[in-house]
Amino acid sequence: MTRVTADMAVSLDLVGAGRDQSAEHPFGPHVGERLHQTWMFDHRDQHAEEIAAITEARAYVMGRHMFGPDRGAWDLSWTGWWGPEPPYHGPVFVLGHRPRDPVEMEGGTTFHFVADGVESAVEQARAAADGGDVSIAGGVTTLNAALAADLVDELRLHVVPFTVGEGLRVFEGVPDLSLVPTGARATPDVTHLTWRRA
Amino acid sequence: MTRVTADMAVSLDLVGAGRDQSAEHPFGPHVGERLHQTWMFDHRDQHAEEIAAITEARAYVMGRHMFGPDRGAWDLSWTGWWGPEPPYHGPVFVLGHRPRDPVEMEGGTTFHFVADGVESAVEQARAAADGGDVSIAGGVTTLNAALAADLVDELRLHVVPFTVGEGLRVFEGVPDLSLVPTGARATPDVTHLTWRRA
Repeated sequence: MTRVTADMAVSLDLVGAGRDQSAEHPFGPHVGERLHQTWMFDHRDQHAEEIAAITEARAYVMGRHMFGPDRGAWDLSWTGWWGPEPPYHGPVFVLGHRPRDPVEMEGGTTFHFVADGVESAVEQARAAADGGDVSIAGGVTTLNAALAADLVDELRLHVVPFTVGEGLRVFEGVPDLSLVPTGARATPDVTHLTWRRA
Repeated sequence: MTRVTADMAVSLDLVGAGRDQSAEHPFGPHVGERLHQTWMFDHRDQHAEEIAAITEARAYVMGRHMFGPDRGAWDLSWTGWWGPEPPYHGPVFVLGHRPRDPVEMEGGTTFHFVADGVESAVEQARAAADGGDVSIAGGVTTLNAALAADLVDELRLHVVPFTVGEGLRVFEGVPDLSLVPTGARATPDVTHLTWRRA
């Protein structure tokens, strides 16, 4: 049966993306690479299980800001941050306010564009996943919308041990959510935490 | 050697105390007992080690709002939330803006009142602890002041799996803190997390 999972790297103060995001600084200049560098790159082997789980879903949902730095009308030359072969190897439903034709990438990733909200995107991803899992890939705004709509079965936060002070925070605008803790692993780089739906 | 530790129960969104705190609702009516009831009372045995650690220090520092609901001039009839024998069994340095004579309780707890800030309170607690640990007992404002002043050697958050949406949050006003994860334990009631100073 399809589960909807969600992964997000956050700071101690739950910031998943800093201010002033841009093509040069996808997470904002103040946050930089600090949410991902140590555990996803420098010490990848020590976090292999958690990293593998991020791309184990059969279909994905992501927000427009996670897909690219452009705003307003689509920049049709932009096909995501991930180069010609993105790590998803399956359908990715990208939220936006404007229609756009699907973009087929190498390795099985196809970006579909959804203009009618996160619930519709998750519904389309469920159908595409054909019994496999659906992952809310981010960013923070999309994750919070999915949490607020009670769409997430398993939440995985990767808490990197520094504070930012300002930015987009997980759980912002999501009052009265209840979860059940299911996992916790502290490492020198990051604390991996999981919860499931209550 | 004296370590400065700090324990705080927080919601998923890092709220350690809700709005509208009062004598009737020490954590605010919306939060109620939810930050403490399951793990500190209902299932105390499953969290015995973490609970014992909270009162293992030799001296304590706490903010005025953790000591009592009165504001402004001290209500001299108020001697804390904990009845005649508080669980501290040692000196407790209570922050406030006005001087007040010490209050000696049963079981070895004495409340001392400190009018010149958290650094002074920690300094006095260090001297009183005589090589034992000092604990920042709370509340949120005092903990954040201690974190911002880089006074905390070991931070222990007990994350209860619900969101509040508004209130006093740990790490608020504490940008650019860096810590090192040292522990994580998920239980159905709460996720116990620890970090040490970087």
